[in-house]
Amino acid sequence: MSSTAYDRIVALGREVQLVGDAAALLGWDQEVLLPPKGVPYRAEQMAWFGGYTHERFTAPEVGDWIAEAETKAEPDDVHADANLREWRHEYERATRLPTKLVQDFAEARVHAQAAWAEARGKSDFALFAPHLAKLVELCREQAERWGYEACLYDALLDRYERGATVGELDSALGGLREALVPVVEEAVSRPPFDRSRLAGHYPVDRQQAFNREVAEAIGFDFEAGRIDTAVHPFCSGMAPHDTRLTTRYDEGDFLSSLFGVLHEAGHGLYEQGLPKERRGQPVGNSASLGVHESQSRLWENHVGRSLAFWEKWLPRAVHHFPHLAGLEPGHLRAAVNRAERSHIRVEADEVTYDLHVLLRYELEKAIFAGELPLEDVPGEWNRRFEDLLGLPVRNDAEGCLQDIHWSMGIFGYFPTYSLGNLNAAHLARAARRDPAVSDGFAKADYGPLLDWMRRRIHHPGSLHLPADLVEKAAGSPVGPEALVEHLRERYLD
Amino acid sequence: MSSTAYDRIVALGREVQLVGDAAALLGWDQEVLLPPKGVPYRAEQMAWFGGYTHERFTAPEVGDWIAEAETKAEPDDVHADANLREWRHEYERATRLPTKLVQDFAEARVHAQAAWAEARGKSDFALFAPHLAKLVELCREQAERWGYEACLYDALLDRYERGATVGELDSALGGLREALVPVVEEAVSRPPFDRSRLAGHYPVDRQQAFNREVAEAIGFDFEAGRIDTAVHPFCSGMAPHDTRLTTRYDEGDFLSSLFGVLHEAGHGLYEQGLPKERRGQPVGNSASLGVHESQSRLWENHVGRSLAFWEKWLPRAVHHFPHLAGLEPGHLRAAVNRAERSHIRVEADEVTYDLHVLLRYELEKAIFAGELPLEDVPGEWNRRFEDLLGLPVRNDAEGCLQDIHWSMGIFGYFPTYSLGNLNAAHLARAARRDPAVSDGFAKADYGPLLDWMRRRIHHPGSLHLPADLVEKAAGSPVGPEALVEHLRERYLD
Repeated sequence: MSSTAYDRIVALGREVQLVGDAAALLGWDQEVLLPPKGVPYRAEQMAWFGGYTHERFTAPEVGDWIAEAETKAEPDDVHADANLREWRHEYERATRLPTKLVQDFAEARVHAQAAWAEARGKSDFALFAPHLAKLVELCREQAERWGYEACLYDALLDRYERGATVGELDSALGGLREALVPVVEEAVSRPPFDRSRLAGHYPVDRQQAFNREVAEAIGFDFEAGRIDTAVHPFCSGMAPHDTRLTTRYDEGDFLSSLFGVLHEAGHGLYEQGLPKERRGQPVGNSASLGVHESQSRLWENHVGRSLAFWEKWLPRAVHHFPHLAGLEPGHLRAAVNRAERSHIRVEADEVTYDLHVLLRYELEKAIFAGELPLEDVPGEWNRRFEDLLGLPVRNDAEGCLQDIHWSMGIFGYFPTYSLGNLNAAHLARAARRDPAVSDGFAKADYGPLLDWMRRRIHHPGSLHLPADLVEKAAGSPVGPEALVEHLRERYLD
Repeated sequence: MSSTAYDRIVALGREVQLVGDAAALLGWDQEVLLPPKGVPYRAEQMAWFGGYTHERFTAPEVGDWIAEAETKAEPDDVHADANLREWRHEYERATRLPTKLVQDFAEARVHAQAAWAEARGKSDFALFAPHLAKLVELCREQAERWGYEACLYDALLDRYERGATVGELDSALGGLREALVPVVEEAVSRPPFDRSRLAGHYPVDRQQAFNREVAEAIGFDFEAGRIDTAVHPFCSGMAPHDTRLTTRYDEGDFLSSLFGVLHEAGHGLYEQGLPKERRGQPVGNSASLGVHESQSRLWENHVGRSLAFWEKWLPRAVHHFPHLAGLEPGHLRAAVNRAERSHIRVEADEVTYDLHVLLRYELEKAIFAGELPLEDVPGEWNRRFEDLLGLPVRNDAEGCLQDIHWSMGIFGYFPTYSLGNLNAAHLARAARRDPAVSDGFAKADYGPLLDWMRRRIHHPGSLHLPADLVEKAAGSPVGPEALVEHLRERYLD
């Protein structure tokens, strides 16, 4: 049987995915189960998998196959078109970096992470500065080699959010700042819910039982997935029928593990809804980080922090945690919607979160535009932070050294968090225009919502570029309006 | 830097091991965690790993390297000698089978396992007979291609117990039958311990805490290993510092999970004691199944079923399970040493177990010697079983269809179970000649015993063929005497 160049790439993609998915299990296991002495050998294994999959996919014949398949594409095969679009793009990006640059980057990251950990511990930016300079220089060189149209930072963004540009992001995120600041202002001035009313002991096995009930009810398939425990909650879609969530438990606060599960189950529902028969093809993948985060934020914020959700779930919570008897759904809604000015992004509430992201996005743009010398980063961070969030920054550890991203050479990633919030609000508003979805929201029956997302977001995989996918699904391009409307409604009404 | 042919094989071995160890994690995960719908994709992944490692190791240049290294071997490098001995042997065996035979065998096994499951369910040997015939034929062809000296069955044995021959096994297992039958006779006639004296509720988390204490005390390193739950207890030494045991829990019987842990921890201590710096070389591997099983049986039977063990551990058991207060160590010793005639090998006690194995060994020899037509297997099984164990066999499900091995084309494996028992008794007797070890046995302090095994069995890996390893360690070749002496002492005194 003769096979076409296209068939050969499909077969290779399937094989490389099969092997890469094994590495995903190794990575998951490392976070969840691996005994401490097993770490160095696991690192060797992970390096082998990275090298093997890279080598297979960047072999010269793969470039030939792509070129040949492009000349023979059927005009109406939208999946093949999308696959070739992405394979071409990935192949170019992977083969344009010389080995030396890849090695230098890998090495610089190792040193930078160690230096960052020390610098953060001592709250001393100067210890980290030379490493940051090196990583910025290497990322700049990568971006130059990858190429860009309007702006160098676009080439970095594309790594995390396919097709995203500063032009588009500025327009989507740009309006957010102006609109958000007054909402924050008012939200934080309201009297907060007294969390001591939830005080009590929440045994881990009870929390697990409750979380599982909730995850199952919103559609997570436990025949094709699990929930385990890890220090940092995450979701790994490690095989077509194997999606694993993790959360962490605080026996004094059941909301912490529950919201970990709701967030990660949002990612997990997306993974479980991807087109399984196309695994190993680009169109079988999720569209982007910004689309992935839209699904987690949807279930965490739009579902889990709503009054209707607690009208349904408070009785089950009382079943598992009898000392909650006597509370009203409104108390829970208030407890999970406290607004507060704070320094640390990962602890920020829904209403202030995007201001933290905006700060980072603006600084990264300025750095790569050559407008912000690195020695000025702490001062500029602190000035802009106080301006945005109204709090003085007392030291670099609670300022520009708080996130790990830069020490890993990750620039262009932060905006995907806010894109996730924008997309979530934009999609939720569009979905509610369907009466079944909005009736469902009112009754905390989220089957119609999941069905809507399945058809418009999950099943298409990467058929479209992420911004196009969201626009097609919602009927209009994403902007700040839906998120601002959602936050005003939730925090100010 | 130029590398020798030997260096190239070492590097290849290390790489193939690294990849094979990833497959070991996938296999472990499949037994312990994998969601049910994830099974088919996992099977595809496992097949990829099997193919990849086989292909890498059987490449023609590997044969050239081995040949070149053999001509240049340093006369006194015992490790290189042993590695080349094993690489040569494995390479020959792997490359002597034509692809067609390997594929036919893989396919026949799939059909045979399905037929066996049905045949066992209906207790009807005839449904399984044609599949057994096919597998025997294919295994005969494999054995012919691998080659043998005295007897075709030797080539099958060698797959599971390197260097073992019918000649040696007949002499080691031969005396056992005569000696065991009268011991069994008397042991089963003694009044059994009344197990209802242990009745009570044993919560899983309490069992886990107790088992962990015991495993830690006998030397299992939890910084380089874990205990998890699985339907069939097993041990996976999946990386140099990552050895995982599993057991299963019955909340009405804490001894079931404890003895699962003692048995698997015996395997695990061996894995943790292998020479880590030689992982990926044959000498870095365990010596054989029969040596592996000697370590599990040592800790399970010689340690865990002794009076001294319970003198030390009953107080801790009472701490975790207060309703045991009032029992004496002798009661526990009696409870874990009940002798009973029974049909099913995997449920047999220490004193009858080897008779079950002997039956299978004799039948397999007769089949491959062409002395037992397959249609006569059930009748011959039943006749010999009653002869050995004094019980009539009522149907094939409790007779010749009870084990999965034959349906997987596994012939020559059963004797390694008894070799394990023989080796365990032989090594334990030799070790006790060291006063520190025998004092330790008396005080249930097993540090000196582990140290003895580390030096003489674990650290050498596969430096010697298994029978030589045991002979060197014990000072004499293994025979039935030590096991018979141990069983007489335990059951008849």
